[in-house]
Amino acid sequence: MKDEKPELGWKNRVHEIIYEADTPMGKLFDIVLFILIIISVILVMLESVKEIDAQYHELLFTLEWVITIFFTIEYIARLVSIKKPLKYVLSFYGIIDILSTIPLYISYIFAGSQVLLAIRALRLLRVFRILKLVRFLGEASQLKNALKASRAKITVFLFAVLIVSVILGTLMYIVESEEAGFTSIPISIYWTIVTLTTVGYGDIAPITPQGQLIATIIMLVGYGIIAVPTGIVTVEFGKQSKEKTNTSAQAGTYVHVNTQACPSCASEGHRDDATHCYNCGSTL
Amino acid sequence: MKDEKPELGWKNRVHEIIYEADTPMGKLFDIVLFILIIISVILVMLESVKEIDAQYHELLFTLEWVITIFFTIEYIARLVSIKKPLKYVLSFYGIIDILSTIPLYISYIFAGSQVLLAIRALRLLRVFRILKLVRFLGEASQLKNALKASRAKITVFLFAVLIVSVILGTLMYIVESEEAGFTSIPISIYWTIVTLTTVGYGDIAPITPQGQLIATIIMLVGYGIIAVPTGIVTVEFGKQSKEKTNTSAQAGTYVHVNTQACPSCASEGHRDDATHCYNCGSTL
Amino acid sequence: MKDEKPELGWKNRVHEIIYEADTPMGKLFDIVLFILIIISVILVMLESVKEIDAQYHELLFTLEWVITIFFTIEYIARLVSIKKPLKYVLSFYGIIDILSTIPLYISYIFAGSQVLLAIRALRLLRVFRILKLVRFLGEASQLKNALKASRAKITVFLFAVLIVSVILGTLMYIVESEEAGFTSIPISIYWTIVTLTTVGYGDIAPITPQGQLIATIIMLVGYGIIAVPTGIVTVEFGKQSKEKTNTSAQAGTYVHVNTQACPSCASEGHRDDATHCYNCGSTL
Amino acid sequence: MKDEKPELGWKNRVHEIIYEADTPMGKLFDIVLFILIIISVILVMLESVKEIDAQYHELLFTLEWVITIFFTIEYIARLVSIKKPLKYVLSFYGIIDILSTIPLYISYIFAGSQVLLAIRALRLLRVFRILKLVRFLGEASQLKNALKASRAKITVFLFAVLIVSVILGTLMYIVESEEAGFTSIPISIYWTIVTLTTVGYGDIAPITPQGQLIATIIMLVGYGIIAVPTGIVTVEFGKQSKEKTNTSAQAGTYVHVNTQACPSCASEGHRDDATHCYNCGSTL
Repeated sequence: MKDEKPELGWKNRVHEIIYEADTPMGKLFDIVLFILIIISVILVMLESVKEIDAQYHELLFTLEWVITIFFTIEYIARLVSIKKPLKYVLSFYGIIDILSTIPLYISYIFAGSQVLLAIRALRLLRVFRILKLVRFLGEASQLKNALKASRAKITVFLFAVLIVSVILGTLMYIVESEEAGFTSIPISIYWTIVTLTTVGYGDIAPITPQGQLIATIIMLVGYGIIAVPTGIVTVEFGKQSKEKTNTSAQAGTYVHVNTQACPSCASEGHRDDATHCYNCGSTL
Repeated sequence: MKDEKPELGWKNRVHEIIYEADTPMGKLFDIVLFILIIISVILVMLESVKEIDAQYHELLFTLEWVITIFFTIEYIARLVSIKKPLKYVLSFYGIIDILSTIPLYISYIFAGSQVLLAIRALRLLRVFRILKLVRFLGEASQLKNALKASRAKITVFLFAVLIVSVILGTLMYIVESEEAGFTSIPISIYWTIVTLTTVGYGDIAPITPQGQLIATIIMLVGYGIIAVPTGIVTVEFGKQSKEKTNTSAQAGTYVHVNTQACPSCASEGHRDDATHCYNCGSTL
Repeated sequence: MKDEKPELGWKNRVHEIIYEADTPMGKLFDIVLFILIIISVILVMLESVKEIDAQYHELLFTLEWVITIFFTIEYIARLVSIKKPLKYVLSFYGIIDILSTIPLYISYIFAGSQVLLAIRALRLLRVFRILKLVRFLGEASQLKNALKASRAKITVFLFAVLIVSVILGTLMYIVESEEAGFTSIPISIYWTIVTLTTVGYGDIAPITPQGQLIATIIMLVGYGIIAVPTGIVTVEFGKQSKEKTNTSAQAGTYVHVNTQACPSCASEGHRDDATHCYNCGSTL
Repeated sequence: MKDEKPELGWKNRVHEIIYEADTPMGKLFDIVLFILIIISVILVMLESVKEIDAQYHELLFTLEWVITIFFTIEYIARLVSIKKPLKYVLSFYGIIDILSTIPLYISYIFAGSQVLLAIRALRLLRVFRILKLVRFLGEASQLKNALKASRAKITVFLFAVLIVSVILGTLMYIVESEEAGFTSIPISIYWTIVTLTTVGYGDIAPITPQGQLIATIIMLVGYGIIAVPTGIVTVEFGKQSKEKTNTSAQAGTYVHVNTQACPSCASEGHRDDATHCYNCGSTL
């Protein structure tokens, strides 16, 4: 499978480097990309700190350009090495890639610090690419499966928490004085969630005896129901853990997926023994 | 069962639309009601925000009337389409329905912003109707069962937490200075619960070394015992989850309930194959 | 067993009423005592609230005397109806009983509000008598067993948390400025525990970048290790729950304890079929 | 094994006292060391409290010298009684031992309160020796194993939490006003972690409606995912607990380790029936 590729020309070679991770060059590319994304994220952070921006503005600006140029080259390489470029452009990662490349170019068209920052922050979305690299770790997939399995239950639970918060927040607004910070029902609901989740900022806190009594009840309720999502996820983990043991026991039933991506449609998660893309049918 | 109904006249048709959810019209009614309840809740919230109320008072007031008129029509329709209206009027949902309809009418009799708000907030209770719709979701019922099964244990636990809070709160009142906010035993108990549940507002915080030492002990105790409700609920979930698997295995023993309501007494949760109400015996 | 008792005179009758709960009079006594203890606790609380004490001082003072007189009579009755009074006087509950009776008498000997309050608060310890009543509930004993079984592990865990807090607290003291509130190592350790247990008062909070970085690490560590006590207790609960099921299955092995107390040494927890005290050997 | 030792001279006797805990003298030494480490840690703490240092400076200084002299003697004894002193000097505990001994000597060379404190605080690291003593407790090792087994999953989880915090923190920085304390992206990320972990200091808190809305979402997310590490650790504990039961059942397979240390290379954790060091092969 792999030995047929080189003869398909430089486009295929570029494709293998960028989209796959099973050649030394492909791995190197992934690591360099990983580091550059981290640097670009740290750059956005540092520029937001006024003292650092004032002192190292020139350096940060230069680094911004280095990152932007690399990202531009990477984006063009991704475009030319794929058979269906439009599909990539309109895909989730395609949109994130273009959004994390253009901010510096746009900043020459639109001026204004707030707008500039907002679009520069879009670069943060590229961390999803890192998550994509992490996706193949067994640990992460087990975590994801357990969360996926308990998603429905946790949604129902959070919905119930929201309704309880609306009722208790309104009660609190009626009972507690406005001086304590309970100036409107939305604010009171915000406070109720702050209390129920045991975050407890203290920017708003009840000052009347009846308000403190209700707050005490809310806290004890929160203490009692914090157990619910934990219970859900723990039971799911227990199942996952058992299934894993059972699956390993039945040798041969486990489908190994690899990091190869289809050169035509860029879909991933192919079986190790796949010779055709499960999505578009073209040869891998 | 279903095909015999139309001939029973318009009252039955209205009953089917309002009380049941297995016809297209019934489903549409439920969705419209759901949206209107959400809007009415949001209206109460927005009116409490002074800036919004000042700017959009006319619009909010008009919407209030639209909601109130719909709720009035709905209430009358519920009354006339049921065989025993008095039973509905005195039922839990009957009382909530009337309480969420009348506020605007009452506001013409009693003036005074605080009273007006309190009765308007009663409309929030209609969210229970939404919960009723959610009730038939399998996830929610599993959650409810686990919570029901662990209710006794959690009550005993919360009772123990309360006694511990009373003792530690009193100790804190004796030890800590009044300047730190520990002005009375009830306040100190309130603070102890704020600390034990790890909410920690910080409006009251110990300032003397001995007070901080006791606070540290309370926190570590709270950290140790937060595990208790979680442990209880997790074990219950584990059981529920196993039982569910076992029940599914024994085909035929699972009783399917549906959304049909008795046209005579409005009781719900009938079996799929039921032809008579389990409560009053009238034909479904 | 029960039918032989009346002939043993009034002392035995008093003993049965006060120390046991299986006759109507005994149950009534327990309920009255329960209510009086709750009232006495609420009295101590209310007296500490300055506004209430100023307004209702006379009423509170009268109620104090009523409670004190009842407790005095109860204490004397307990003394005379038991065969070995000295053993009772020196027992845990005997000491609590005398300490909750004498404050008002002592207040005539020693004057001074602080001292007075401290000894009056001792009455709170009588809530342990209520806990004693609760002890026979199955739920509470299951909770207690699970906590007992995981006590050793939780102690080791809390010890490890303490050592980590000492090291991180000292690090924080060196790194963070004194203006932020980190004025000494003990204060920094106090702050570390406030953060690790996710209480987070906010009276002391890091203000320098390096301090906030360490704080972030402490929080994530706390987030990671909060799972430990929960894991311990959950596993214990799971075991308890299984054992209970197994025990119930093996009929006859479960030893039923009852609320009877030995008339001679007041020890409790006798088997249902016991005719002699397991502690002193006297006939029950 | 033990009876052959005395004839090997005083070095061996000193080795047995210092490095092992199975003779009365060895146990006494461990207890004295334990107490002295605790005292030295408390000394560092007390010196940091300005009021105490001002009043008892002389006493604290004298005690410092007593501790330092004992630690010096202990260090020399450890050096001479071991066959390969250099290996000990360069080992983890060897470095900690020298670092906790020298501060007072160094303070005569370098003056300056901050430097002095920093090096004195190094003595805290000796608490690891206490942890070493605790290591042989079964409870601690079970805890450690469960944490070790779930380390990979918790790392992946914390990494995901960090990425989510970076994205939500940046969003918060764009949305929320600077007056509320969101002055830079790193500060906003710090606040996001404070909120996600439910610590909630309240030094920075959202004040705009949109900021409070995002904060509410962050809190509910934090509430939902706090379950994840708990689920991981609980499942691991369940496994450990089962394995322990199984292991105990298979009599003879459990390898008992003891507190003996190799007199030549100081490695520990030898089997009870070992006659040679598993590391360097010399006779125990």
